[in-house]
Amino acid sequence: MNYKMVMQYDGTRYDGWQKQGNTGNTIQGRLEAVLSRFAGEPVEVQGAGRTDAGVHAYGQTANFRLQTDAKEEEVLVYLNRYLSEDIEVLSVERVHDRFHARLSAVQKTYLYRVGMGSGKHVFDRKYLYHFDGSLDVKAMEEAAGYLRGTHDFKSFCSNRRMKKSTTRTLHMVKIDVDKKEDVIRFILIGDGFLYHMVRIIVGTLLEIGQGKREPKDIIGILEEKDRAKAGFTAPPQGLTMVSVEYE
Amino acid sequence: MNYKMVMQYDGTRYDGWQKQGNTGNTIQGRLEAVLSRFAGEPVEVQGAGRTDAGVHAYGQTANFRLQTDAKEEEVLVYLNRYLSEDIEVLSVERVHDRFHARLSAVQKTYLYRVGMGSGKHVFDRKYLYHFDGSLDVKAMEEAAGYLRGTHDFKSFCSNRRMKKSTTRTLHMVKIDVDKKEDVIRFILIGDGFLYHMVRIIVGTLLEIGQGKREPKDIIGILEEKDRAKAGFTAPPQGLTMVSVEYE
Repeated sequence: MNYKMVMQYDGTRYDGWQKQGNTGNTIQGRLEAVLSRFAGEPVEVQGAGRTDAGVHAYGQTANFRLQTDAKEEEVLVYLNRYLSEDIEVLSVERVHDRFHARLSAVQKTYLYRVGMGSGKHVFDRKYLYHFDGSLDVKAMEEAAGYLRGTHDFKSFCSNRRMKKSTTRTLHMVKIDVDKKEDVIRFILIGDGFLYHMVRIIVGTLLEIGQGKREPKDIIGILEEKDRAKAGFTAPPQGLTMVSVEYE
Repeated sequence: MNYKMVMQYDGTRYDGWQKQGNTGNTIQGRLEAVLSRFAGEPVEVQGAGRTDAGVHAYGQTANFRLQTDAKEEEVLVYLNRYLSEDIEVLSVERVHDRFHARLSAVQKTYLYRVGMGSGKHVFDRKYLYHFDGSLDVKAMEEAAGYLRGTHDFKSFCSNRRMKKSTTRTLHMVKIDVDKKEDVIRFILIGDGFLYHMVRIIVGTLLEIGQGKREPKDIIGILEEKDRAKAGFTAPPQGLTMVSVEYE
């Protein structure tokens, strides 16, 4: 039986999503340990996205197979009982056998938070990247316009050995300025994201916002297909995987 | 020169506000260490309230004296540079010599958050008390009505050896239900609070909300002047000291 689950987690304490042999405290590793104990057999969990160490999720999605025909509710309650307080499974449902959390995904939404000003953002410090300086939001919005649509995003990918297509479609790159909280939120929606793609996009937009680059530079960066041409990789703690959509 | 400072902190990592000799990682201890280094002499910090281990603050207030005539801005910048990321000094200002953060305070506001439902409140887990059960909000509001005004709150004080007056005036005990976040907020405003008073009031209100006690029981509890008659002490992490008012 194939199961789909949606979960949220605070990534602060974890070495990211993906299992690293028998070492590392990973989300995937924790989920597999609890599910294997539940099932009395080794269970493998496939995640929709491999979030890095320190990256959070509101709606990471995964699937796993059980030999037994366990009730959805039973699996959900068991998982939440034995997972620690920084991981919560929001839903478990049976899905058709061909469902694969990563390969079946058609759209993903990511949120990146930048904390502005000289304040320390004491209560949100683990969920944002603290940036003390002024940013030209209009310039960043113009730059975002050049990123929207279907492009080869090779310049925005940290994996140099990526052999598969690096073409992706970005449906939305929205920049939301929250003056009350002194936070800028970058919301990205696309059909798929390359390794570090959101963080490199945000890093590049921040360099444009600082005036280190021009908005139109995005066009050249995309054309060059060279990671070195894009901006820095914004740090992980500002990133949250919001949701994954399926057909 | 006498200085007043307002600060916020995430109390999770600390053994509370008050210094405990040379041991313990306390907020007061951290502030005094940084200020003493700044001044090149031992500096003592007086806080308006001695928050317990795990209790947070949005507007704790304190005062300290420096021999030198340091600029307010200079002290503020130095403090924030050397304090860790979970303590932020929001303001530093010179005040008249008689100002004492605790003795001059005329009003304090506290917030207590209760997280409802079966959800884990993953991102707020360190800032609320998780309570899985149903609560009769109307009954709690009726009970809150009996707490408002001037009473001897001895039954709501953990310090049995308290020799000073235990009479206080509660101006507000508001219960705010946030259905979207699945959180109930208790907002208490008063001229002063006894040791554990907010947490015992919230614990007692929760027992009334569960139907274990009647709203009118508050009258008898106040009359008895006996800590054992009131409810349990709600855990520290739900409590935040919001602000301190001075004349």
